[in-house]
Amino acid sequence: MAIPVIMDCDPGIDDAFSLAMAIAADDLNILGVTTTYGNVGLSYTTANALRILDWFGSDIPVYPGIDRALLGKLVDASEYHGATGLEAPEIGPPTNSPQAEDAVSFLIRTLQASQEKITIVASGPLTNLAVMLRLAPDVTSKIERIVFMGGSTDYGNDSPAAEFNMLCDPHAAQIILDANVPKTMFGLNVTHQAIATPARVRAMRDLGNDTGRVFADMSVFFEKVYRERYGFEGSALHDPCTVAWLLKPELFETRRMRVDVETNSGLSFGRTVHDIWNIAGNSCHTDVALNANVDGFFALLTDLLSRLR
Amino acid sequence: MAIPVIMDCDPGIDDAFSLAMAIAADDLNILGVTTTYGNVGLSYTTANALRILDWFGSDIPVYPGIDRALLGKLVDASEYHGATGLEAPEIGPPTNSPQAEDAVSFLIRTLQASQEKITIVASGPLTNLAVMLRLAPDVTSKIERIVFMGGSTDYGNDSPAAEFNMLCDPHAAQIILDANVPKTMFGLNVTHQAIATPARVRAMRDLGNDTGRVFADMSVFFEKVYRERYGFEGSALHDPCTVAWLLKPELFETRRMRVDVETNSGLSFGRTVHDIWNIAGNSCHTDVALNANVDGFFALLTDLLSRLR
Amino acid sequence: MAIPVIMDCDPGIDDAFSLAMAIAADDLNILGVTTTYGNVGLSYTTANALRILDWFGSDIPVYPGIDRALLGKLVDASEYHGATGLEAPEIGPPTNSPQAEDAVSFLIRTLQASQEKITIVASGPLTNLAVMLRLAPDVTSKIERIVFMGGSTDYGNDSPAAEFNMLCDPHAAQIILDANVPKTMFGLNVTHQAIATPARVRAMRDLGNDTGRVFADMSVFFEKVYRERYGFEGSALHDPCTVAWLLKPELFETRRMRVDVETNSGLSFGRTVHDIWNIAGNSCHTDVALNANVDGFFALLTDLLSRLR
Amino acid sequence: MAIPVIMDCDPGIDDAFSLAMAIAADDLNILGVTTTYGNVGLSYTTANALRILDWFGSDIPVYPGIDRALLGKLVDASEYHGATGLEAPEIGPPTNSPQAEDAVSFLIRTLQASQEKITIVASGPLTNLAVMLRLAPDVTSKIERIVFMGGSTDYGNDSPAAEFNMLCDPHAAQIILDANVPKTMFGLNVTHQAIATPARVRAMRDLGNDTGRVFADMSVFFEKVYRERYGFEGSALHDPCTVAWLLKPELFETRRMRVDVETNSGLSFGRTVHDIWNIAGNSCHTDVALNANVDGFFALLTDLLSRLR
Repeated sequence: MAIPVIMDCDPGIDDAFSLAMAIAADDLNILGVTTTYGNVGLSYTTANALRILDWFGSDIPVYPGIDRALLGKLVDASEYHGATGLEAPEIGPPTNSPQAEDAVSFLIRTLQASQEKITIVASGPLTNLAVMLRLAPDVTSKIERIVFMGGSTDYGNDSPAAEFNMLCDPHAAQIILDANVPKTMFGLNVTHQAIATPARVRAMRDLGNDTGRVFADMSVFFEKVYRERYGFEGSALHDPCTVAWLLKPELFETRRMRVDVETNSGLSFGRTVHDIWNIAGNSCHTDVALNANVDGFFALLTDLLSRLR
Repeated sequence: MAIPVIMDCDPGIDDAFSLAMAIAADDLNILGVTTTYGNVGLSYTTANALRILDWFGSDIPVYPGIDRALLGKLVDASEYHGATGLEAPEIGPPTNSPQAEDAVSFLIRTLQASQEKITIVASGPLTNLAVMLRLAPDVTSKIERIVFMGGSTDYGNDSPAAEFNMLCDPHAAQIILDANVPKTMFGLNVTHQAIATPARVRAMRDLGNDTGRVFADMSVFFEKVYRERYGFEGSALHDPCTVAWLLKPELFETRRMRVDVETNSGLSFGRTVHDIWNIAGNSCHTDVALNANVDGFFALLTDLLSRLR
Repeated sequence: MAIPVIMDCDPGIDDAFSLAMAIAADDLNILGVTTTYGNVGLSYTTANALRILDWFGSDIPVYPGIDRALLGKLVDASEYHGATGLEAPEIGPPTNSPQAEDAVSFLIRTLQASQEKITIVASGPLTNLAVMLRLAPDVTSKIERIVFMGGSTDYGNDSPAAEFNMLCDPHAAQIILDANVPKTMFGLNVTHQAIATPARVRAMRDLGNDTGRVFADMSVFFEKVYRERYGFEGSALHDPCTVAWLLKPELFETRRMRVDVETNSGLSFGRTVHDIWNIAGNSCHTDVALNANVDGFFALLTDLLSRLR
Repeated sequence: MAIPVIMDCDPGIDDAFSLAMAIAADDLNILGVTTTYGNVGLSYTTANALRILDWFGSDIPVYPGIDRALLGKLVDASEYHGATGLEAPEIGPPTNSPQAEDAVSFLIRTLQASQEKITIVASGPLTNLAVMLRLAPDVTSKIERIVFMGGSTDYGNDSPAAEFNMLCDPHAAQIILDANVPKTMFGLNVTHQAIATPARVRAMRDLGNDTGRVFADMSVFFEKVYRERYGFEGSALHDPCTVAWLLKPELFETRRMRVDVETNSGLSFGRTVHDIWNIAGNSCHTDVALNANVDGFFALLTDLLSRLR
């Protein structure tokens, strides 16, 4: 039985890897893709989701989401992902159109109607999911788990304290973190281990298929900032950790703890707070990834890419 | 031509006055009543809205709203309004039912379909309106104005710094305050002038109709905290200031200024900040009521109550 | 019996009025002047204190204080007071020197040695007094009262929320506000009533003495921003309210309440919070000036100026 | 040439280890011990500093410091250290008295008079040092370095976000962190590696001298909370990391980065923020310890204890 999932994303290069892995995996059944602003603006991320699905010949429907944070200014990560968010010339413009229904309506309708629990994979700001929870609190009983990329147990990337997805909309993130729904979190502390080194990129390219070549190219495009700012040997493949964990949880060491996010402005705005010793005694429903089997992760990723066109 | 309005409210005793005034006024056309948690929980405020409309023989539809703040703990004002929010035995239980459609969907659908701009009168926490703006940013072009009770240019009531409606959901309030939509604000600085003194309550009772008697009784029920905590001579009729201004703007002195609300936790959480000298140079779209013609306000209120059953 | 006072100030034009009034008043015995950064930098405020005392022939000692806030960036109010803080050519450069002893040491030594309680008049940021309280908590028993200019029950001046002295060092202000010492506060809500209109300035000038002429000129220099930004008819004489209250408390309506100041960054940073209804139930030791007899205030001021050279 | 140091501490069990190591080391010349509130109240920490020095036959002078944080409530760590902060019956009551001069005055006087730069080792809240910097900014030129225990690059201990010393007085900590003085920081991320396991405690005890036995006992007393809350195999010897680094810097991996501390109330109050990628581009003057050679650390510690009575 394949796991039913909804992918809430802002593609974005590493989201493209996530989508590719999820499409390739027999164990996942993608019910829909919902988009969020984030790496670039919503019109780009929606187009990019369609571009990727089209390119793989998939007709999974794409539902456009909310175009800005609950509060605060719109930021983006085009410095990493390029102006359009997916500078991949071989992946052409979208031929399909997004659905008329918006992401939040689709999520609520689908969850309320579902006989089985659904897993949500979130790789962007959590605005869609937060508004969903306020409009329809009852959907929590239909959510198997929210697996998300965001936050960090140690250092930030978009500010000294905060990771990009959390900083985009910390208020939405806090709504999700506080909700009584199982969650698995992949923060920078672990995604900064998932480095696409030259050898790993070469392994993709050596697959010999279109996907291996195009995704190897995207990975190289993505690595500039990682080399210059972080001194890494390649780009960090943040978002694919979520899909990898769904398929092979044994690749990651996780620990359950209370996680909250700082919503007060100032130095720590958007930083996740991890009560690893349960000092505050609050309810805990987030499994935080602490370490990855990085070679295993890249073996899985490359294997999945090999199954595609 | 009557002004088309939607009443977003959490009745609540002073909301009951607002609704009564709006029903009585020929110049207002109430398209619907949307409810919010606030003075008491959502199930009570929805029932109370129906009770009031039933009692006046109105079949205006009631749409239940969001039941909690974007962030933070649920608080209420049952200390002022009684456990059910409307301790008025003569106003029986509701005979009509709320609509199946939720408040946010009704608001978006109605605004998007409307040929003319609609005025929204908000007398509770602003959660419904905030979620509406994020789900459908285009509706701003259909909003004539948001007239709301909330905030204060000087002292708070639910904390030393903050007024109750703002403190319930400061994040939602900031979404509204920041939106490029004309607004008129009635804060405690002016609503604490609108005191239902014994003489003014007697004038209601002396009308001789059911409404005068029942609303006089509600006003007396409501005044306990105002006498004890504030030393006032009667209850403060906060919410009716909004409807009074729509009908007779000359009753209030207003001044346009930038208003924001503190969303950082701490002392000032939920306090409105009024840039009366335009120091920060930000866009200004809130007309803040600074003073009231209180006798004129009560004359209008009593006249409107006299027209009802 | 004259009241023993220490003047902690950052002259500054309105501080110059305060010092003049205190020198002229038989009922005050100035033990020393301590300086703080604020309107302009510490070297200027120290020089200006000496310049004023010299000009009046006074040999009251001047003790230089701390030159910056506990936390945060140095700001100034030279926009109001001119680059040197006292653009008064007739008041020449200082001929006396400041004391070698620093302000905090002088305050602690003097208070600890005093047989009677001493009143502190503070018209700048409260950094000196805050450090004094942390170094020598026992001095509180020797302080009769701290009479200070700062804060506001309504609007700010240096930010939409905050008054200048509070915004300079809110952390120091909170140390003072929280201390169990009687205090009288003169915030913008009352000092913005003390407007030196053309008629009031003419009354100073018409005194016929040097002081009347020079202080009339200073008042005119000071009024530019008040006319342009606030639409006032003249400059606001903030600091002299403190000395006026010491001499004639009946000129002001005050009310005792808990006052705190927001020390969290963001919109409300530096804003005072006034628990006028004692909602939080905390200890109250600040008498907040709410209204002034403005004509009486200017009559007192002009009378005191008439007694000087 | 021995390094001149001043030890600013709140003994406290792990401070006792620090003091013992510093006394034993030929390479350090302790000019004075200044005390701060922290693990327990100031009267206890001052007595404990004297007790330890007395017991080792040292006449190094002890200067009592400030007894509370700049802002906020007094907390303590008596849960870890026992009610008196040093539950070591063999170390009797103090026979010497603290100096009449207070810690801040001693620090300023000593630094200003010194021909050579002095190292400050701080193992408690940083209140004394912060007030010193505001009263005498010029002393920075006489400080070789501030080596302190506090903060964390990952998890907190006294709140989910914050380490105890930082949480005691984050405002003072920010004054120090922001100062242009070289600093070395030992946060929980490294001090939670320095675990006094049973084998390491046995090695102390097996030294055969009084010191080995008494300090082994203290270590065992200290480990209860570490076993129960953290699941550690023994107590964490936080403070001695500072002295160990001074003597053998090669025991620790450090990295220079900008460090600030959150002073806004809320979730992250007191948490250190580490700009490891220099995202904000601010000045960097803190060498943050990231990892320890733990066996080397305990070898050094045990060797130093062996040289004492």
